[in-house]
Amino acid sequence: MVQCNSAGGAIQTVRENESYSLSVTPRGARVHAVTPAGALRGLATFAQLVELGPEGYRLPAVEIEDTPRFPWRGLMLDVSRHWMPIAVVKRTLDAMAAVKLNVFHWHLSDDQGFRVESSSRPKLHEMGSDGHYYTHDEVREIIAYARDRGIRVVPEFDMPGHATSWLVGYPELGSAPGPFQIERKWGIFNPCLDPGNEEVYRFLDGLIGEMAALFPDEYFHVGGDEVNGEQWKANARIQEFMRSHGMKQEHELQAYFSKRVQEIVARHGKKMMGWDEILQPGLPRDVAVQSWRGQKSLAEAARQGYSGILSSGYYLDLMYHSSEHYAVDPLGKEAASLTPEEQKLILGGEACEWAEFATPENIDARLWPRGAVVAERLWSPQSVRDVADMYRRLEAVSRKLDFAGADHLASYRRMTQRLAGVRDVEPVRVLAGVVEPVKKYSRNRIQKGSYTSFTPLNRMVDVARPESIEAIQVSRMVERLPLTAGEIRRRLLIWRDNDARLQPVIQQSALLAEVAPLSRDLASIATTGLEALDRIQAGQHDPGWASRQEKSLDAASQQHAELLLSVVDPVRRLVRLAK
Amino acid sequence: MVQCNSAGGAIQTVRENESYSLSVTPRGARVHAVTPAGALRGLATFAQLVELGPEGYRLPAVEIEDTPRFPWRGLMLDVSRHWMPIAVVKRTLDAMAAVKLNVFHWHLSDDQGFRVESSSRPKLHEMGSDGHYYTHDEVREIIAYARDRGIRVVPEFDMPGHATSWLVGYPELGSAPGPFQIERKWGIFNPCLDPGNEEVYRFLDGLIGEMAALFPDEYFHVGGDEVNGEQWKANARIQEFMRSHGMKQEHELQAYFSKRVQEIVARHGKKMMGWDEILQPGLPRDVAVQSWRGQKSLAEAARQGYSGILSSGYYLDLMYHSSEHYAVDPLGKEAASLTPEEQKLILGGEACEWAEFATPENIDARLWPRGAVVAERLWSPQSVRDVADMYRRLEAVSRKLDFAGADHLASYRRMTQRLAGVRDVEPVRVLAGVVEPVKKYSRNRIQKGSYTSFTPLNRMVDVARPESIEAIQVSRMVERLPLTAGEIRRRLLIWRDNDARLQPVIQQSALLAEVAPLSRDLASIATTGLEALDRIQAGQHDPGWASRQEKSLDAASQQHAELLLSVVDPVRRLVRLAK
Repeated sequence: MVQCNSAGGAIQTVRENESYSLSVTPRGARVHAVTPAGALRGLATFAQLVELGPEGYRLPAVEIEDTPRFPWRGLMLDVSRHWMPIAVVKRTLDAMAAVKLNVFHWHLSDDQGFRVESSSRPKLHEMGSDGHYYTHDEVREIIAYARDRGIRVVPEFDMPGHATSWLVGYPELGSAPGPFQIERKWGIFNPCLDPGNEEVYRFLDGLIGEMAALFPDEYFHVGGDEVNGEQWKANARIQEFMRSHGMKQEHELQAYFSKRVQEIVARHGKKMMGWDEILQPGLPRDVAVQSWRGQKSLAEAARQGYSGILSSGYYLDLMYHSSEHYAVDPLGKEAASLTPEEQKLILGGEACEWAEFATPENIDARLWPRGAVVAERLWSPQSVRDVADMYRRLEAVSRKLDFAGADHLASYRRMTQRLAGVRDVEPVRVLAGVVEPVKKYSRNRIQKGSYTSFTPLNRMVDVARPESIEAIQVSRMVERLPLTAGEIRRRLLIWRDNDARLQPVIQQSALLAEVAPLSRDLASIATTGLEALDRIQAGQHDPGWASRQEKSLDAASQQHAELLLSVVDPVRRLVRLAK
Repeated sequence: MVQCNSAGGAIQTVRENESYSLSVTPRGARVHAVTPAGALRGLATFAQLVELGPEGYRLPAVEIEDTPRFPWRGLMLDVSRHWMPIAVVKRTLDAMAAVKLNVFHWHLSDDQGFRVESSSRPKLHEMGSDGHYYTHDEVREIIAYARDRGIRVVPEFDMPGHATSWLVGYPELGSAPGPFQIERKWGIFNPCLDPGNEEVYRFLDGLIGEMAALFPDEYFHVGGDEVNGEQWKANARIQEFMRSHGMKQEHELQAYFSKRVQEIVARHGKKMMGWDEILQPGLPRDVAVQSWRGQKSLAEAARQGYSGILSSGYYLDLMYHSSEHYAVDPLGKEAASLTPEEQKLILGGEACEWAEFATPENIDARLWPRGAVVAERLWSPQSVRDVADMYRRLEAVSRKLDFAGADHLASYRRMTQRLAGVRDVEPVRVLAGVVEPVKKYSRNRIQKGSYTSFTPLNRMVDVARPESIEAIQVSRMVERLPLTAGEIRRRLLIWRDNDARLQPVIQQSALLAEVAPLSRDLASIATTGLEALDRIQAGQHDPGWASRQEKSLDAASQQHAELLLSVVDPVRRLVRLAK
């Protein structure tokens, strides 16, 4: 039975009451909430508790009183770097609802594409999107779909930088002469709106007015990040504008721009939101900041009286482990010195997925299950922080997300099969299971900036999971030796013997050729691991042997094909135990 | 390069020229066709030839001149027994195009649901569909989607039987007094339109007129199958109508009905199509018959000058093996005595999927890859009939269909995982890989008719493939002994040892409880197989032992949980070799 005390507002707000109680007894289950959003959270918990048992589907008898720690629990999806069709957005919303995330932050424009139809400024989507944009009807469909799941939709139009795609159709808005083309590479680029041109503000008034009417949420995100100022420095007219307005540095010009944009956003009835850089003296207190730079910047904003959310530490595209995201708290050390009132200004956080290396095919595996870890950090008490317990539950959550419609497990099967072609996929999966993509922004650096939006993302690095659960499990087993010796040996043998099975597949697959050295390294590391295990079990410790092995492990920990061999870590632990 | 000599007609017809030539040389590839449909077939072949090689994606140098053997190569999908959303229909069309099927026969109405919006008779979809119907816009979207893939869409509205769902909203059309309710069970039911009621023909004129305008194809399918005549016999007014029209038997009344419906269909510019039963003296020669009864009935129709297609032998829902479908030829023995002109009236065939036991989740695994086998039978020369070669290619086709968007492999992964709950899925997959659902219509019989449209289809029988490729492979290996002894032994050991791994999973899964005896039988059969293999290798033949084992294999070949243990077959072959 679901009891809900009110219909909820027409538009869900950040102040929405999401608390619920859930009571499960042998006689039935009852969700009780003040708002529909709260009822949805209760139902999500209910669904999470359901499990298959010997007599049928069942759930434990529980009495739960639950309320989120933070009111803003978001996921940002970049649909500009790679286009994400409606189906991707919908299944992302389904998965978000399952883990109680409540803000879908839709990064709709960037240098590589302007992704929404504009009736007032049609050359934005006509010339800036390669035809890949959402129509107004589709936007409304997504907003309704999200609303049905208790999720707010906050649109972002990134400006004045990250706006190359705008300038393709409207070069006159730029800080340098055009023509401009849709950007195909990844990085920070020079094209930028011209803050000294009054026409820019007239343009933005039209565009923001249109989009403010289309998106009902109270917040409107204007980006504001990573302006390098190159075009401003190079433009005599802009330099003259700065001088005449008493500005010495480019960041002052951006402050001026932010203030003007904030006035437009406010005129259209919205609160402005932006990345750290927007925060400049003189902005009204209802502006909210999203911190990608770090907790210090967020705490500083709160101290000045601005509300904000944390995204630093929650960037899913950087390929960090779940445990690293789990350790990041919006009210971390930097917030300790804030007053309780100031702490309340920190509304929560958002997991962010920048899509330079994500496509509709592998996006789900980038979002999930790690996104669920951020979701838990934002919902549950700060005291819930047992990493081993988190990993234990994460596997179950991953399967639940699969059944909720997320594609992360399905795409893994499909993409590994593609790597194998018509040949045996099992040895491909063994290797893929123990490697991870390189971290942070190093893929583009390794390839010397040669990646473009047209580069196929169909290699092992595009399939491999951001964290090898296999490697994490075996590392944990090493801590529990000697109890786990048998299981560790079993895994090491599989790794050692995989190369012989995989090399014939590699030889027939252009997509796999690059991982041949990794496969050989895996065999060699596993052999080292087996020897270490023998020594540990026989009590034959040998510091000389161990330090030689550690050196060769250092070599094996270098990237190959933009991949890291994650099992170096557990084997290194074994070797140290044999010291 | 694609060369196409004409734009093709606005509406694709059964006479469409689908021939093409494909030339692949080291310098490039060229598809040449007379029509866009032909060009699409050439591109399908091109896509089929592409494979992953050591240096990249490649295809062999070929010169192909190709044309289909039959112009009508269809797939019938029942969307009444279980509702199939638009997404299912679209991915089915994608897969059909990949194997060059060119007619999507949409079985839109049956006792369990009327699945298309009717603006002229709105209570059809409003009261007869549980809200699960396609709007006119969605129908047009599907027709356009199919057209883009060179696929015609033939709608079927089944009448006068199989029409319970019509009578929910319009009981006055029935042959017995209402009220009527949407049928929830499977079988042949009594409710039937009243051929003696002039209002029925006025109604059909409106409905067929509306649907004839919505569906552009030249053919209009009116069903006509399985009228049991019970309500006609029991209705004094209908009996009086028959007497006054000089009819003695109910089939004469159906003939009268067919004639009247045919006139309506013709008046709206279409050719009538129906199942065997529609064929009655006096119908014009442009009526086409779809034979579910058999080749004899089809040949007889051709002899009378009617064109027709074969579906008997192509019912995918009966769970037959690919080899059985492959052996069925529209121009089989019964057609041998036809003149060449009469043979030309046999236009091809259609694979049929009745959806009593299919849901959006497992439908793809019922359609594919076996549907591809029917597609090949209908496209390729009659002389192409090497079963071993077909199976060898079928695995590759299955993977291509997966990449074309069919869900058969993905759903298998998802559904087996659900059976395992949070526990190890591998032993579940081992068992699922060696069982098959019972054949023909026996599921409903085994359950004594207790199945309804609300019964969850989430058991192993709903996941298991219609043919166990594993069992087929091992049977083939037995033929190639002693060369294959090692591989056979490896498989037998896996089967034997699986029970110990699976039983703990079964004990925690209500969904798996019913397969516990199957798992034990698998272990026992595998033990028998291993002993047989030992005897064969040692030359210790023993007829007494063999005949005792054969008896126990007979017991193990009985169904459990509506499943058959397919590996009985290869083990029986081994036992016989040990005789």
